[in-house]
Amino acid sequence: MANRQIQLMNEARTRASFDSKELTNLIYGGVEVVRVRDAAFARIEKALRSSATNNLPAAVGEASRSAQYMDGLQFGQAMLKEKLVHRQSVFDFITPRYHFANASPFGLHFLMFIPALKLLGSPQQLAHWLPLAESGKILGTYCQTELGHGTFLRGLETTAIFDEVADEFIIHSPTTSSTKYWPGGLGYSSSHAIVMARLIISDRDHGVHPFIAQLRSLEDYTPFPGVELGDVGLKLGHNSSDNGYAVFSHFRVPRTHLLMRNAQVLRDGTYVAGTNTKLMYGTMLFARRIIIDSVYFQLAQAATIAIRYSTVREQGNLAFDSSESIEVPILMFKSQQYRLLTIMARSFALLFASKHAGALYDEMAAQQVHGDDSMLPHVHATMAGLKAYATQTAADGAEDARKCCGGHGYLAMSGFGNLVPTVTAMATLEGENYVMYQQTAHLLVKCASASREDLHENLLYLRCPVKTSLAADTDFLDPVIQSEVLRQRASCLVEEYTEALRVSQTRDRLSPTQAWNLHMMGLISAARAHIEYVVLDAFITAVRQIEAGSIRNVLHRVCSLFALSCIESPQGHGFVGDRSLSAHHLRRVHTTINDLLEEVLPNAIALSDAWNFSDASLESALGCRDGDVYERMMKWTRQVPLNVAAARTGSVFRPGFEEYIQPILKGKL
Amino acid sequence: MANRQIQLMNEARTRASFDSKELTNLIYGGVEVVRVRDAAFARIEKALRSSATNNLPAAVGEASRSAQYMDGLQFGQAMLKEKLVHRQSVFDFITPRYHFANASPFGLHFLMFIPALKLLGSPQQLAHWLPLAESGKILGTYCQTELGHGTFLRGLETTAIFDEVADEFIIHSPTTSSTKYWPGGLGYSSSHAIVMARLIISDRDHGVHPFIAQLRSLEDYTPFPGVELGDVGLKLGHNSSDNGYAVFSHFRVPRTHLLMRNAQVLRDGTYVAGTNTKLMYGTMLFARRIIIDSVYFQLAQAATIAIRYSTVREQGNLAFDSSESIEVPILMFKSQQYRLLTIMARSFALLFASKHAGALYDEMAAQQVHGDDSMLPHVHATMAGLKAYATQTAADGAEDARKCCGGHGYLAMSGFGNLVPTVTAMATLEGENYVMYQQTAHLLVKCASASREDLHENLLYLRCPVKTSLAADTDFLDPVIQSEVLRQRASCLVEEYTEALRVSQTRDRLSPTQAWNLHMMGLISAARAHIEYVVLDAFITAVRQIEAGSIRNVLHRVCSLFALSCIESPQGHGFVGDRSLSAHHLRRVHTTINDLLEEVLPNAIALSDAWNFSDASLESALGCRDGDVYERMMKWTRQVPLNVAAARTGSVFRPGFEEYIQPILKGKL
Repeated sequence: MANRQIQLMNEARTRASFDSKELTNLIYGGVEVVRVRDAAFARIEKALRSSATNNLPAAVGEASRSAQYMDGLQFGQAMLKEKLVHRQSVFDFITPRYHFANASPFGLHFLMFIPALKLLGSPQQLAHWLPLAESGKILGTYCQTELGHGTFLRGLETTAIFDEVADEFIIHSPTTSSTKYWPGGLGYSSSHAIVMARLIISDRDHGVHPFIAQLRSLEDYTPFPGVELGDVGLKLGHNSSDNGYAVFSHFRVPRTHLLMRNAQVLRDGTYVAGTNTKLMYGTMLFARRIIIDSVYFQLAQAATIAIRYSTVREQGNLAFDSSESIEVPILMFKSQQYRLLTIMARSFALLFASKHAGALYDEMAAQQVHGDDSMLPHVHATMAGLKAYATQTAADGAEDARKCCGGHGYLAMSGFGNLVPTVTAMATLEGENYVMYQQTAHLLVKCASASREDLHENLLYLRCPVKTSLAADTDFLDPVIQSEVLRQRASCLVEEYTEALRVSQTRDRLSPTQAWNLHMMGLISAARAHIEYVVLDAFITAVRQIEAGSIRNVLHRVCSLFALSCIESPQGHGFVGDRSLSAHHLRRVHTTINDLLEEVLPNAIALSDAWNFSDASLESALGCRDGDVYERMMKWTRQVPLNVAAARTGSVFRPGFEEYIQPILKGKL
Repeated sequence: MANRQIQLMNEARTRASFDSKELTNLIYGGVEVVRVRDAAFARIEKALRSSATNNLPAAVGEASRSAQYMDGLQFGQAMLKEKLVHRQSVFDFITPRYHFANASPFGLHFLMFIPALKLLGSPQQLAHWLPLAESGKILGTYCQTELGHGTFLRGLETTAIFDEVADEFIIHSPTTSSTKYWPGGLGYSSSHAIVMARLIISDRDHGVHPFIAQLRSLEDYTPFPGVELGDVGLKLGHNSSDNGYAVFSHFRVPRTHLLMRNAQVLRDGTYVAGTNTKLMYGTMLFARRIIIDSVYFQLAQAATIAIRYSTVREQGNLAFDSSESIEVPILMFKSQQYRLLTIMARSFALLFASKHAGALYDEMAAQQVHGDDSMLPHVHATMAGLKAYATQTAADGAEDARKCCGGHGYLAMSGFGNLVPTVTAMATLEGENYVMYQQTAHLLVKCASASREDLHENLLYLRCPVKTSLAADTDFLDPVIQSEVLRQRASCLVEEYTEALRVSQTRDRLSPTQAWNLHMMGLISAARAHIEYVVLDAFITAVRQIEAGSIRNVLHRVCSLFALSCIESPQGHGFVGDRSLSAHHLRRVHTTINDLLEEVLPNAIALSDAWNFSDASLESALGCRDGDVYERMMKWTRQVPLNVAAARTGSVFRPGFEEYIQPILKGKL
């Protein structure tokens, strides 16, 4: 017989107004895609023996550095097998836990190494290296960041000096701060790397160029002489991968290991400059696209775990009147509804924004084949800002969902132990968010002086900021109104800080750099406001395109919930500056949100189910589909390795008792 | 010779306008307190061998469950020694890393077990138990939370049935959800516990009462028959303690183990009801006070690490003009200044707010000795709201400081690996924050109908909300103005939602509980706004009391920075509703903040130094006082246990290579 928690979950599931499987198909792009994904997950979970939800997942039970790395190697190998043996792409960029690929020790092989090869290698180089890489005969990573240098590529210190006699480059780390530090899988997992280093010929520095280097013997993986390799140690998360360091000491590679699609060095040391300086943008853009794609999954996972838990967790209410003092599922509390349903709404918003940005990217890539780079600035600015917006939204939301689970959310076995620190890494990885927003801001400011013809249609609104006053009886459920409020804030902020930059430069005689620095926070706010408008617009457009029916009905409400919560609880600059919203309007927004929460609530479980996360992928005793939280928690707790070990010695943790506790009790401190 | 990072740090330190040691004395309450603290830290760091900053701290190098627990036992024992042998109180409630006491396996002994004994035990019981507890002959914890029940005390399921024949209580866990779960040190460290259970005599349930139970043999720590004990497994943080679980199976304790200061059970089973139902509030209030005290330290630690790192970390600027493209310390960027200096300002704000709340608490305690409980509602509401405000501010700030350190902040050796997940626990521990704010809101709403005489002076402003319009040329550096803006928002929100509650009950016929639930988010916003005003007021008052001079000058600016950043980037409800701020005002606030940042910047390092954190307590390669970041990072990285072990086998991680990597390379998947 189903216990109380299972009953509560079953009841909640029946309340849905739509078929969650249909929404699954919409999320992933069709029945066939869902089938392929399901099959791949089933295969990999069988290989990892992770499908039995009565067993404590290994990654949740033990956190020693080597155990975590072994765990990563295990699923990393299984992911490669999907690609190399089963010819499936489901796990190209995402782990079986929906983490971004670089949580796997081999994640950068497909995400960065092969794409960078394709982008930077000459045809002859591709002919040699690609077959090796694509068959897994070599395992590569991408080696750019140094101990002292991140985003600012020009600051890299590693040198590659051409030795004409030997026809070789000598790769060297001249200082401590030039140590390569952070590349995924560099510690002990990769055999090869693309190393970014300053190309120097006869004392002339030609700037940073890409070199391919074999770091370890393919026979026994011993590092080659001239390079010291190791792990960067424990991190807040992503410990399943061995992000590593490399100190080069006059490490030699043949001249032909300079990737020469663009710049070349001839046999006699002649440097032939490249023509395409924008090549590297491609890999960065691609990585950011993938990051955006992965974080909404993690946000939806967080929402799923917390919504399921809140459906079966009962807690005393805050009744004034003791006759009402019964326990109810905590999702009945408005604060819990507000937090969790808006988090769920944000994951859908990011999903549709990502589909929108992905389409832009594909359009640009198609044009670039014909040599047309005109979309690059716009796509670059959109991807950068959206990367910042998506990763921050996902990190904040995942952490808040964790808090929504109270104390139990703090257990590793809640699933948040892996989820929160993994997703929070994304705010700095592949472009720090404050830098990303500034890249968006650069384009927005330029729009002020650009001609209309040069502007992408998505940016045209900045040229004609319409200032409307909202009527007292404004209907905030109208998507046109929602979009208008967000658009107006964005255009006002862009206008304000473009003007502030101008004044600082003309009146106050600041240099462009000084003026930018002075107004940096405002410019970042403007960029964020623009991106939030873009996200809402993509969501509204996507909902409009769904055929009329129960799915569109629920997503329309979810979209409104997203829009109105952005308006009610703004991040950074609020809605004062544009004067469009009065206190009266905000009260109407607040009331409308309360109504929406009531309407969406019965679909909370169905919206979670629609993401189609397997129990194994959530690794959560709180978030399993069946809702059987307490029984599973106790089963898992009893399997905790410390408890299993102590059980063998009379339920005492002997080393601790003997060394530390007994002396206290005996007064022998 | 000092390297570049050390030079940058030395230079930055000389820029201060005040003597950081003087501020240290102000923070801790005098020269003598600082001396005692310094001595205690030196003693404990010697015992833990943690003072040599060239060595990778053990807790940063290995995260296996048992290694982390052993680490906790080690510093827990050292903390007890401070108390029992050196008779010092520095480490009563705070670990050598400035973590809240329950990061130590013995933390609840002094924080909860002894205070609860004192509060709940009869004189005879105290005579027996206190000497044992205070000498460390027994080690106790406090056992209340169950798997299925947290905040809602009345929902607890554990039973204590009186067996009159044996003159014993039978403590029992009747369901899975009644398993005691979470108490600090319950897993393997505590010999005794105060267990909260429903007292039942002849089938009559008298509600939850406290029982003292010996759980383990003092000889060999074997659990007594009738109780299953264990660890709850890995958590996001606090893994140095063994938060544990207990399943009772007809576990017997003598009748006299019911703590009988209040209610009593006589030999014949007669239940004598207690008169003081508020006794338990005391322990909760005390724990919250300590939490508030500990989190501002952690926030200041986070700010210290990130400010020091940002002083020596150089990064390319965002120059438009390549002639300006040099690398500068990242603290030169306005966004970094804004984030880090406001975080530092918040830690000072919480420090002074905590001193204010502590004084209120002491005043109340002094009155309670004379039987006067009149301050309890106000102190309870203040402590609850401040606990929520302080823990959220500290958690958000610590995480943002982590992000300010870019990728390196994500390393465990940054110090944030321990700091961020530890401080973030505080939002749910000892009262979930959204519940806490509602307890504040309850009092605020009551104020609306209370007579003026019944109101504490701090709440009087709610009875006469002054609505002032600010002049166009308002001076936002004026503390009176700053305070007025925050006060006005708070009183408007309280007024608005008190009225909303009334309307919902009278016009819409909702029950008090339904009305409260409907307006929950607004009520929480109102409570938060009130507490933010209280915090600012305490900060302003404290600065006023400092004698004129360099310290007051800098703290006045830090206080303004706190106030204006609260106004510019409001959390939750902003400043629209009260109409006091126009877009013009917000632009002035923004400009004033920029000026303040410029003025506070030269004191950034001195403000960090003033907290007097030892390098060992920070456990951070990024945050050591000398600024020698890169050299220390590489020293620590080479000591990572995985690297040390791999070095012994030719710098190859053999188990991983053999099991997972080699099959890939050989195409044998």
